Amino acid sequence: MLKIDESVSPAQKLWEPFGAPIVTADDYIASLRGRGLRVFFMGEPVAEPVDNPVIWPSINAMAETYRLATERPELAAARREDGKLVNRFLHIPTSPADLLAKHDMQRELGRRTGTCFQRCVGMDAIATLHSVTFEMDAKFGTAYARRFRAFLERAQDANIIIGGAMTDPKGDRSKPPHQQTDPDQFLHVVRRDENGIFVSGAKMHQTGAVNSHWMIFMPTMRLGEGDRDWAIIGALPVTAPGVTYIMGRQTNDMRIVDGGVLDAGNAQFAGQEALVVFENVFVPNEHIFMDGEIGFASTVVERFTTYHRSSYACKTGLGDVMIGAAAAAAELNGLEKVRHIQDKLIEMTHLNETMYSSCVAGATRSKTEASGVQINDVMLSNVAKQNVTRFPYEIARLAQDIAGGIIVTMPSEKDLDNDEIGPLVRKYMQGQDGADPVDRMRVMRLSENMTIGRNAVGYLTESMHGAGSPQAQRVEIGRRMDLEGKKNLAYHLAGVAAKPKV
Amino acid sequence: MLKIDESVSPAQKLWEPFGAPIVTADDYIASLRGRGLRVFFMGEPVAEPVDNPVIWPSINAMAETYRLATERPELAAARREDGKLVNRFLHIPTSPADLLAKHDMQRELGRRTGTCFQRCVGMDAIATLHSVTFEMDAKFGTAYARRFRAFLERAQDANIIIGGAMTDPKGDRSKPPHQQTDPDQFLHVVRRDENGIFVSGAKMHQTGAVNSHWMIFMPTMRLGEGDRDWAIIGALPVTAPGVTYIMGRQTNDMRIVDGGVLDAGNAQFAGQEALVVFENVFVPNEHIFMDGEIGFASTVVERFTTYHRSSYACKTGLGDVMIGAAAAAAELNGLEKVRHIQDKLIEMTHLNETMYSSCVAGATRSKTEASGVQINDVMLSNVAKQNVTRFPYEIARLAQDIAGGIIVTMPSEKDLDNDEIGPLVRKYMQGQDGADPVDRMRVMRLSENMTIGRNAVGYLTESMHGAGSPQAQRVEIGRRMDLEGKKNLAYHLAGVAAKPKV
Amino acid sequence: MLKIDESVSPAQKLWEPFGAPIVTADDYIASLRGRGLRVFFMGEPVAEPVDNPVIWPSINAMAETYRLATERPELAAARREDGKLVNRFLHIPTSPADLLAKHDMQRELGRRTGTCFQRCVGMDAIATLHSVTFEMDAKFGTAYARRFRAFLERAQDANIIIGGAMTDPKGDRSKPPHQQTDPDQFLHVVRRDENGIFVSGAKMHQTGAVNSHWMIFMPTMRLGEGDRDWAIIGALPVTAPGVTYIMGRQTNDMRIVDGGVLDAGNAQFAGQEALVVFENVFVPNEHIFMDGEIGFASTVVERFTTYHRSSYACKTGLGDVMIGAAAAAAELNGLEKVRHIQDKLIEMTHLNETMYSSCVAGATRSKTEASGVQINDVMLSNVAKQNVTRFPYEIARLAQDIAGGIIVTMPSEKDLDNDEIGPLVRKYMQGQDGADPVDRMRVMRLSENMTIGRNAVGYLTESMHGAGSPQAQRVEIGRRMDLEGKKNLAYHLAGVAAKPKV
Amino acid sequence: MLKIDESVSPAQKLWEPFGAPIVTADDYIASLRGRGLRVFFMGEPVAEPVDNPVIWPSINAMAETYRLATERPELAAARREDGKLVNRFLHIPTSPADLLAKHDMQRELGRRTGTCFQRCVGMDAIATLHSVTFEMDAKFGTAYARRFRAFLERAQDANIIIGGAMTDPKGDRSKPPHQQTDPDQFLHVVRRDENGIFVSGAKMHQTGAVNSHWMIFMPTMRLGEGDRDWAIIGALPVTAPGVTYIMGRQTNDMRIVDGGVLDAGNAQFAGQEALVVFENVFVPNEHIFMDGEIGFASTVVERFTTYHRSSYACKTGLGDVMIGAAAAAAELNGLEKVRHIQDKLIEMTHLNETMYSSCVAGATRSKTEASGVQINDVMLSNVAKQNVTRFPYEIARLAQDIAGGIIVTMPSEKDLDNDEIGPLVRKYMQGQDGADPVDRMRVMRLSENMTIGRNAVGYLTESMHGAGSPQAQRVEIGRRMDLEGKKNLAYHLAGVAAKPKV
Repeated sequence: MLKIDESVSPAQKLWEPFGAPIVTADDYIASLRGRGLRVFFMGEPVAEPVDNPVIWPSINAMAETYRLATERPELAAARREDGKLVNRFLHIPTSPADLLAKHDMQRELGRRTGTCFQRCVGMDAIATLHSVTFEMDAKFGTAYARRFRAFLERAQDANIIIGGAMTDPKGDRSKPPHQQTDPDQFLHVVRRDENGIFVSGAKMHQTGAVNSHWMIFMPTMRLGEGDRDWAIIGALPVTAPGVTYIMGRQTNDMRIVDGGVLDAGNAQFAGQEALVVFENVFVPNEHIFMDGEIGFASTVVERFTTYHRSSYACKTGLGDVMIGAAAAAAELNGLEKVRHIQDKLIEMTHLNETMYSSCVAGATRSKTEASGVQINDVMLSNVAKQNVTRFPYEIARLAQDIAGGIIVTMPSEKDLDNDEIGPLVRKYMQGQDGADPVDRMRVMRLSENMTIGRNAVGYLTESMHGAGSPQAQRVEIGRRMDLEGKKNLAYHLAGVAAKPKV
Repeated sequence: MLKIDESVSPAQKLWEPFGAPIVTADDYIASLRGRGLRVFFMGEPVAEPVDNPVIWPSINAMAETYRLATERPELAAARREDGKLVNRFLHIPTSPADLLAKHDMQRELGRRTGTCFQRCVGMDAIATLHSVTFEMDAKFGTAYARRFRAFLERAQDANIIIGGAMTDPKGDRSKPPHQQTDPDQFLHVVRRDENGIFVSGAKMHQTGAVNSHWMIFMPTMRLGEGDRDWAIIGALPVTAPGVTYIMGRQTNDMRIVDGGVLDAGNAQFAGQEALVVFENVFVPNEHIFMDGEIGFASTVVERFTTYHRSSYACKTGLGDVMIGAAAAAAELNGLEKVRHIQDKLIEMTHLNETMYSSCVAGATRSKTEASGVQINDVMLSNVAKQNVTRFPYEIARLAQDIAGGIIVTMPSEKDLDNDEIGPLVRKYMQGQDGADPVDRMRVMRLSENMTIGRNAVGYLTESMHGAGSPQAQRVEIGRRMDLEGKKNLAYHLAGVAAKPKV
Repeated sequence: MLKIDESVSPAQKLWEPFGAPIVTADDYIASLRGRGLRVFFMGEPVAEPVDNPVIWPSINAMAETYRLATERPELAAARREDGKLVNRFLHIPTSPADLLAKHDMQRELGRRTGTCFQRCVGMDAIATLHSVTFEMDAKFGTAYARRFRAFLERAQDANIIIGGAMTDPKGDRSKPPHQQTDPDQFLHVVRRDENGIFVSGAKMHQTGAVNSHWMIFMPTMRLGEGDRDWAIIGALPVTAPGVTYIMGRQTNDMRIVDGGVLDAGNAQFAGQEALVVFENVFVPNEHIFMDGEIGFASTVVERFTTYHRSSYACKTGLGDVMIGAAAAAAELNGLEKVRHIQDKLIEMTHLNETMYSSCVAGATRSKTEASGVQINDVMLSNVAKQNVTRFPYEIARLAQDIAGGIIVTMPSEKDLDNDEIGPLVRKYMQGQDGADPVDRMRVMRLSENMTIGRNAVGYLTESMHGAGSPQAQRVEIGRRMDLEGKKNLAYHLAGVAAKPKV
Repeated sequence: MLKIDESVSPAQKLWEPFGAPIVTADDYIASLRGRGLRVFFMGEPVAEPVDNPVIWPSINAMAETYRLATERPELAAARREDGKLVNRFLHIPTSPADLLAKHDMQRELGRRTGTCFQRCVGMDAIATLHSVTFEMDAKFGTAYARRFRAFLERAQDANIIIGGAMTDPKGDRSKPPHQQTDPDQFLHVVRRDENGIFVSGAKMHQTGAVNSHWMIFMPTMRLGEGDRDWAIIGALPVTAPGVTYIMGRQTNDMRIVDGGVLDAGNAQFAGQEALVVFENVFVPNEHIFMDGEIGFASTVVERFTTYHRSSYACKTGLGDVMIGAAAAAAELNGLEKVRHIQDKLIEMTHLNETMYSSCVAGATRSKTEASGVQINDVMLSNVAKQNVTRFPYEIARLAQDIAGGIIVTMPSEKDLDNDEIGPLVRKYMQGQDGADPVDRMRVMRLSENMTIGRNAVGYLTESMHGAGSPQAQRVEIGRRMDLEGKKNLAYHLAGVAAKPKV
């Protein structure tokens, strides 16, 4: 199927910009400058995302992954087969311990940033490709696994960020890709030459796309005969010609601009999504990891979602912050010891640890694929994510209960700077005697930020839809619930001799 | 206690600006112009609130109450004792039918605006004062009821908006008002002369304060000996010298400015709260309806919360919009007929009608106070509000589930106007074939607006804390649950002859 | 359709046994004796149900409806058109007040018995037939309404109990009645003569069947062409030849026999169901109220379920007992004042009053049918029942939480009578100092009775399935949720000019 | 392993009856015969529990632990330090893998029996004593660990069942043991001599007590100065003179007698509890493992509850049966493919696996105590149990929803044997064409058994109260939720420089 000739490699050239490996967060931030990405936000081109105040917190959240790798390598780095220490976000897990460490890293980054740090899609994509390329090669005699490993090794050595791109716009949901009125509603091959392919289409909701160095695109659902040009996986630098990034608006995205640090609630960290449009984008053969193997599209999706649904362990880190914000609000309101508030904090913790439990259990009960990669238990991973679509909403509701209505009626930090009314705001924002009213405002703004503000995007709505909406998990749970086995248990205990024929 | 001499009435003068009665929404809007209120927003004075794009939607939501009274007087108006038709927001209810009509008016206004229309606090305050002034007069021989009725009649004739002001900043919650380090943490009398009193302090979370004509202030909690100067109820024009309004920030409040009509989600309607500061504000004797009767402070609070907790019937109107938004999103996504989506819409409806049920039941089981005013059943009113602190959050969660992640990752309407990317956004925002992608964006922004945007303030957080936080309702339910009576039922059926002595 | 000749009325004769009207509970009990019903329980014929210790509590629960009518006629009786006072269970409601009184009577009987008092199906059947016979007559020129009113008047005058019989066995649920392998899976006409019809089939789950005097049978679902012989409504005395009653077993039904009064938990009251089999049972023309009008079968079902779903107001009376039992258990455990227990009692009350709310609201928002009968609001009645399928389970769970594990591990009352161990049981069942340990045992057995014992049948499972299983209510809510109207609200506020064409 | 010098050992004699080790279930059952236990049930002495039809199913459930050890030793057996294979219920866990295997064994036994198999308390007691005796010895120089290990080794070699006894009657809960009016409300030392001690008191809710060979008693709560005689741990054979067993009544316990196998629902397996009374029962020194070390009483309780709360992994096995019973009921009703039923089965599975998750996670995150024993993570173990106090009730509610009301109205199996009505019952119990109606009855009875019948005791109420009532877990979660750490996360992200002094 594939004609492979890499004597003169167009892929080689794409790696040239990635020279000395990135080590620190500063290295990373520097690596993002001057790349000339085609980025738009609110109808205007963004000359330099790093300098854009709305985009910056999302870059800084990603930078935290480098900081953690430096500060706590036991958590955020791992040893490659050859012994080299690589960033865990670029690491292929080969044991339950690897998956457990991954989830703890995710929780810790959630605790440090209070938002989405945007690297998990890429991490889960490479784990997925490890087994899928291996299995395609075994079945079809292709060379995807070799290509993929070469690609990954380069990425590990350069210590770059790989984003993952999966969700297509999907157009009319009742039709397969090749029957869409607009074929671009799913990313697909529009042209081929001897060096590679050209793809067009779009990917939605791409978290951290403009903050990455490379991206891997993958099909978003089961494909059938007729969909071969849509059964495509490849890697490309985010700077590839023909790629356009249209940043999404988030709740309160402009707070940092129109208000300031206090009004922002969490001024340092945020996620941010982009609609990524591909127009005739070239991918050299060496970076193609699937091309037409329609039967493996559903395998990709199932493996990826299995990894990624457990990756929502991160939300328990955000939950730690949310619980802390509620406790801090209670403290500054002078109400921390009140019984019903303590009880609500206990309930929030209980729900948070329940979510965490299924991530840990799914890693513990993980299995090793033929390629050697370790993968979470499918049932438990889906159970984990299903709880993530529910409990953060309840935790946030309880946080609003504890904080008080002030989180939605509070004056701006700009009012503090006004000579006439600043003293009045301070006077009446005083809670507990002795507390600084501005500290109280800060904590209230953080609670707003996570329950109804910018990071509610990551804490709530992304918890709902990331890695698949709730119904997707229910379908998977339904597939694996083994009703026949369970019915047999019941028939046995009920004294039904043989399974009834019905 | 009060020496009343009204031969020369300072109160008379305060009514002079209110000449011809307000009839239409336009009359109302005109009446707000040029009043010279001292209003601040984000650190700057607001010269004319009517012209402020962030404040305007909250004025327009209030204007809808005049529109409804004109269009559907059977719902939004009622006959005074003397047969004159008055706006229902200024009407004293005297029957279950009155309270039922009130709740239906509230639901209808919620359906029309999708937000808080801000007049219920004032409406519930006048119903409260009808019985409380009557009972104080009966006990102490004061003349509050006569004063209050004269005041109310004037307000009805002028057809103005009366706001209610209750929530004090409260400072250190473990201390009564007179023991606070800062006595202004509760609004109180700071000076008296023969014509009236001067009050200082503040009221928090004042919905629609700058959109009203007059306000009635009331104590916020049970008071004791030593708190007499805090046991004060009075009415004053919102233009009274010494009153300052500091507008709160709401989630996405600036969307209408930085984005536009589409990005705003619901560009026409919103609520908005202010911190209202009182500095030596004069209230003439004729407008004082309580002055030192500490024993009645808790009566005021209980009566008011009973009325006001049932007033959250409005949220079922917002719920109708939220359910409609979810159904519209499903329709434009091409998924309306999908089973699990239909089932979620049913669940949302079930929860919405459950909330409505307790409001209706509380009105049906209402009773008549000695003054002749009708009041909702206390238990059922608290039950209604308790459900309101829970179900809108679940309805909103389900709405996010149905709408999809697009509500938090969607480009700005400004991107639509950009020649380069506008066509790309339209292309990839296409859902169901044949639908207008911009319509889909509008519906998604409305869903954002109500679940995580500006009107989530009114739909969610205000549902939590308005009319008292959840625990306040639980305390009331606990007081009235008649455990002794219920234990007797149990002892009787269990065959325990006499109630055990324990 | 019907040839009616009543010159010599076989119906007349059927009324002969009902001479002097029943007034007291004792009259009622006497009226049940010596009727020679064909009743079986646990494989044996029951000679006299009144003397059967397992059946007796269900008779006594029905008797309580007579006691209430005597003690509190304002609640349990009502005036017929001609001014005569009749039992409310035989009364046609003609106003919201009638329906509200009905629900309060139901709650009160729930409070007095802690179980199902079994008369609501019959009551709701007669209200249903009032409008349906009227409408059939209007459409087809039949005389059903006259017959029905004559029947009802006789029943009212004799003050007897009419049971309602609806649920057929249903066989293969994918097929209509006339396509069933066994036509008897739905009750139907098997023969006709000039005097009347002969029916065969069965009715399941018939609460209180053997405790009634007459029963009305009705179709259980929408019928179509081919099902005419199944579209049959009629009345017959429970003593009619060809009727067999097979009593169902209930959890702990034998406790009163093998243990005794204490072990039974609630020794005086219980419900009990029977499978009622009809074999060629004759119904004279005068007692036929539908015969072949297939189009009205779904009307009967919808009207009946609307009435009957609100009739679950009774469960709030059981809820009062359950809450009382939990509070009594806490009291005797010495833990009544503990915060988390108080909070659970509040939650139980909140849920109980939430159920009650929708019953009251559905009665308040009721409407008058063409025949003059008043009917609850369909949406709110379904909402009421939907909550009834959830909240009693949660209330029971909390009751078990409060009572403690002792409710499932407690010795028998027979152990109390044993000289060796009786004193030990008393010693170690002592809770709160000073309390009688046997009283504590009684209360614990009542809690067992309602959560996992005999009356859990009525409090839990019947709450789930009576008047239709949960999904049936969801279907009705779905039919009436007016998504088009709600979408229009959303499109309007979202700024979508015209409703999108999709 | 241990060198024991027992030249004159009263303990020695107690072991004499335990000769050849028990291997098979039959061995076990034989070992229970002829022991002359003083057992009472329903006021009568039980001569031979093995032959009592009500007690038998609880013995058979315990026997299943021997069957599993034979059939699947990899699951139900483990290697002792010296390499000898011992029953896992007698094994000291020393790794996460040990704890994981334990939980899987528990789930499997739940699947096989559908009830409580009664051995977990003893298993968790020995794990607890391993570390606590070690730590007491380290602190006080006592020899408890040596004694305990000798005892355990004998038990392992004989392969007997050790029960654990913890819950005291507790009397007046506001007073410590030594201030109780009746000192026996907590088990305590009443006399000492040179050979040992004599204890009196009682233990409540003792699952499987009469089915065990030995029991270990432990204090039930934190003790203080004055409570030394209550700070006692010891082992004794269940046959010890002075011990009396009063069996508790369970819901439907007599069904197997008054109905039969079908009516019982699950005729083979059940749990059963006893009130165990101790009157001057002798314990030789060698079997005393704590005597007066009051400071360690709370350690015992905390360690034990940590183990035991995770042991509720068994309920996920019962959950498998419950889900299977619901699916079987749907199948025989002909409704298995109906969407809302499938969705309910998915929800039941989701909840069941969520419970399982926290057990697995608590084992994965377990730690090693100083003595070498492995113990589950305290937080996650409490989270596991907290979910167990909620989810089985919801699973059971959904199972009743799916099964239909027939589970509470169904005739007895004895009706099947009656010539007159047997055919009628069969005819009308027919569901899906082709199914055996008696099979349908069996499955319905199993559903009744687990939701409202005998094994609802184990599946529901024991899930609520076993290993501590829900509030006990909340207290533990509250103690460990690290609010200070979480507040610091929030203060950091909110930009509060230093933690506020309040």
